[in-house]
Amino acid sequence: MKNYTTLADIHDLDGLIGEARSLKSKNTASNTGKGKTLGMLFFNPSLRTRLSTEKAAKLLGMEVMVMNADKDGWALEFEDGAIMNSDKAEHIKEAAAVLSQYCDIIAVRAFPGLKDKEKDESEYVLNSFKKYASVPVVNLESATGHPLQALTDAMTIQEFNKAEKAKVVLSWAPHPKALPQSVANSFTEMMQRLDVDFVITNPEGYDLDPDIRKDVKVEHDQEKAFKDADFVYVKNWSSYENYGQILDIKENWTVNQAKLKNTNNAKVMHCLPVRRNVVIADNVLDSENSIVIQQANNRTYAAQAVLKRILECRKE
Amino acid sequence: MKNYTTLADIHDLDGLIGEARSLKSKNTASNTGKGKTLGMLFFNPSLRTRLSTEKAAKLLGMEVMVMNADKDGWALEFEDGAIMNSDKAEHIKEAAAVLSQYCDIIAVRAFPGLKDKEKDESEYVLNSFKKYASVPVVNLESATGHPLQALTDAMTIQEFNKAEKAKVVLSWAPHPKALPQSVANSFTEMMQRLDVDFVITNPEGYDLDPDIRKDVKVEHDQEKAFKDADFVYVKNWSSYENYGQILDIKENWTVNQAKLKNTNNAKVMHCLPVRRNVVIADNVLDSENSIVIQQANNRTYAAQAVLKRILECRKE
Amino acid sequence: MKNYTTLADIHDLDGLIGEARSLKSKNTASNTGKGKTLGMLFFNPSLRTRLSTEKAAKLLGMEVMVMNADKDGWALEFEDGAIMNSDKAEHIKEAAAVLSQYCDIIAVRAFPGLKDKEKDESEYVLNSFKKYASVPVVNLESATGHPLQALTDAMTIQEFNKAEKAKVVLSWAPHPKALPQSVANSFTEMMQRLDVDFVITNPEGYDLDPDIRKDVKVEHDQEKAFKDADFVYVKNWSSYENYGQILDIKENWTVNQAKLKNTNNAKVMHCLPVRRNVVIADNVLDSENSIVIQQANNRTYAAQAVLKRILECRKE
Repeated sequence: MKNYTTLADIHDLDGLIGEARSLKSKNTASNTGKGKTLGMLFFNPSLRTRLSTEKAAKLLGMEVMVMNADKDGWALEFEDGAIMNSDKAEHIKEAAAVLSQYCDIIAVRAFPGLKDKEKDESEYVLNSFKKYASVPVVNLESATGHPLQALTDAMTIQEFNKAEKAKVVLSWAPHPKALPQSVANSFTEMMQRLDVDFVITNPEGYDLDPDIRKDVKVEHDQEKAFKDADFVYVKNWSSYENYGQILDIKENWTVNQAKLKNTNNAKVMHCLPVRRNVVIADNVLDSENSIVIQQANNRTYAAQAVLKRILECRKE
Repeated sequence: MKNYTTLADIHDLDGLIGEARSLKSKNTASNTGKGKTLGMLFFNPSLRTRLSTEKAAKLLGMEVMVMNADKDGWALEFEDGAIMNSDKAEHIKEAAAVLSQYCDIIAVRAFPGLKDKEKDESEYVLNSFKKYASVPVVNLESATGHPLQALTDAMTIQEFNKAEKAKVVLSWAPHPKALPQSVANSFTEMMQRLDVDFVITNPEGYDLDPDIRKDVKVEHDQEKAFKDADFVYVKNWSSYENYGQILDIKENWTVNQAKLKNTNNAKVMHCLPVRRNVVIADNVLDSENSIVIQQANNRTYAAQAVLKRILECRKE
Repeated sequence: MKNYTTLADIHDLDGLIGEARSLKSKNTASNTGKGKTLGMLFFNPSLRTRLSTEKAAKLLGMEVMVMNADKDGWALEFEDGAIMNSDKAEHIKEAAAVLSQYCDIIAVRAFPGLKDKEKDESEYVLNSFKKYASVPVVNLESATGHPLQALTDAMTIQEFNKAEKAKVVLSWAPHPKALPQSVANSFTEMMQRLDVDFVITNPEGYDLDPDIRKDVKVEHDQEKAFKDADFVYVKNWSSYENYGQILDIKENWTVNQAKLKNTNNAKVMHCLPVRRNVVIADNVLDSENSIVIQQANNRTYAAQAVLKRILECRKE
């Protein structure tokens, strides 16, 4: 694996999930990454992603250097030919080239602005690092995707699945803030690669990007969608059609026990952090249906598998 | 040792102090914590506590991950049943459970608000971590106590004591800001467990919580209290009676050489940082009476002893 | 080497550059610093210096603890005898003494205020650490100098030089913000110690401190200065004469390809971050003339050589 910026970077999905599960069952430190440095660059805050990826890297024997680009006010210029006489102190050309010399892998988190769809979809931050860095680049959640989360999700579904062909439902949920579509996008792409029966349910106006959804069924009636589900993945996202907007929704989309009644005793997933009694009710999160904690634990091993593949690829 | 959140977690005090002093005399790295991770979560800033605890963990071979909850704006919800549609993004139930999977020990710093005595005394931050974490929890200074500091203090008194039964005085001192009672509380509890003659001196209105003081003598005349003292521990705290208030004090409570005249050439202690010429005068801090630097050094070994005991307990 | 705060701390310059180049060619981890801790204290933000120095320390097997004094609001008092009843919570006397117990080497970054020349030139932050710390102190860029950068620069010139006696030009360049003279000062001092033909070119009003320039030629005509240059080091600094000011300059001092025409196909250097098309034009930075990326890479090995020398000195 050369980079891990989108799910398209995974060629052998079964092998990669197997690697993650095998690393989890061993749970021991190795020397694969000894003498190598992971640089993690955050344009947005992070705790879960930072900790799990840092832990993954250290389990591989790597050194980790964390850079908070957001806090240190290290404003980067991404435009080619810019006359930098304002607030941007460094161009991505230099930043990526220099970091490539201090780090063996660069991991970047850069959320969308949710104002300008075209700009967000260009993934200019992540793709500029990919263009100008001379070392592999890992996506720690970008404007339109979160592939480390999606790998974790696939691994978790495989672990918990008892059905021959599981029914997996991605359900939109309410949230007071406008959130990216990244997690939902990557989950949708991932489900299309697994042998599952996948349905998305969301209010009208919240349909995800058709280029990502492709022929996945979108059911605007949450109750219908949940019928016989083995897994319900709950997540809020802001509108794609009315880009970045929060729309006025009349029905209650919060996932609670009553709504799970017609599922196949579904396991409930969420990438966390989750707002209790807004996104998912206490009576679900505190029940055996919830596997959100186990899911979060898998973040470490998904990241470890990805870093391991990248390190091995560099050695060849 | 299962957790280290209050002094009640120490069952064999002599043994623990002995361990800390032995680790100090050896001052070598070990592998006790190899492959284990200490997560340090700060709801308030810290430098001394962070550095000494980080160093202690690394001397034991542990990995350390630092999370600044205060700066990353990772607002946690602590109330059961809350409808999280406002500024709190994650509930302590998830936060503690997830961190327990990335870390083998969780250390937490959470100061009191000093507005609501009952809320502060509930120690809701620390105790919620203890309730919902599945790994040991260490107190890096909480609303009402600072047990790592108290262990350091006991160790330091033992090192420097030449008397058969030392007279130890805890003296209130002035400060421009309203400070927690945490350090004074834990020091008071610790002195009650040592074979010392312990007196607290503070202005009227500054008496500590009677449940912590118990039958410790409080002498409102600083001069009388200092008579024949072997150790003077200087520290400011805000009023407990007029909770969190700074009261108007007429006399000068700053500790200076003149005040040490009638002591038994007392050693002067302070947990640092200390405001010179407000809390303690230059002529004391720059004299041989001051052992504040040696005391700060012992923070590392007190933390190392605690972490070692916790790691050993986990192995059994 | 006991400390590394100014270039005067280098007694054997050839040996030190040789060490840095040898460490670069080996590029392997060693155990020289095993069990030792580098404390890096930042009063100003840093990414390049932090990452390269952190990497250097880890290549030597050291532990690294980073303290952001600027962000944690750890306001230090530097004045002797101060009555600390205002915003400063800790005196440098305690801070330096305590850090000396947690760290084996203390590295400090403290920029000038650029308001009060005398105060900046006293280097009170760096020198107070040197005075009160009991362990070696390293300068990560101070009010008037940046010796780690200057060592990097000397090493880079040696690597790329093909001339018998290279002509090196330090050229002032425009910048929207008032910057310190530190990098230019240390570069000027360093060039006086190398066997090169050294010229400084800057607009009138921008002459560097005469005590640092000594008899180095200052040529106010950039075009004349560039004639036959082998190396052009570009850097902005604020006025020394009109201390800390940005003066009104009519000519265009941005370095571009047209200006390199009469050089000896000069290599162009800059300490980074560089503002494209303000300090240096795209057509230089994107050409083979630019060695700014290779120069940044050498930061790691210059820091590694310095830390290694200090560690070896401590062992003797």
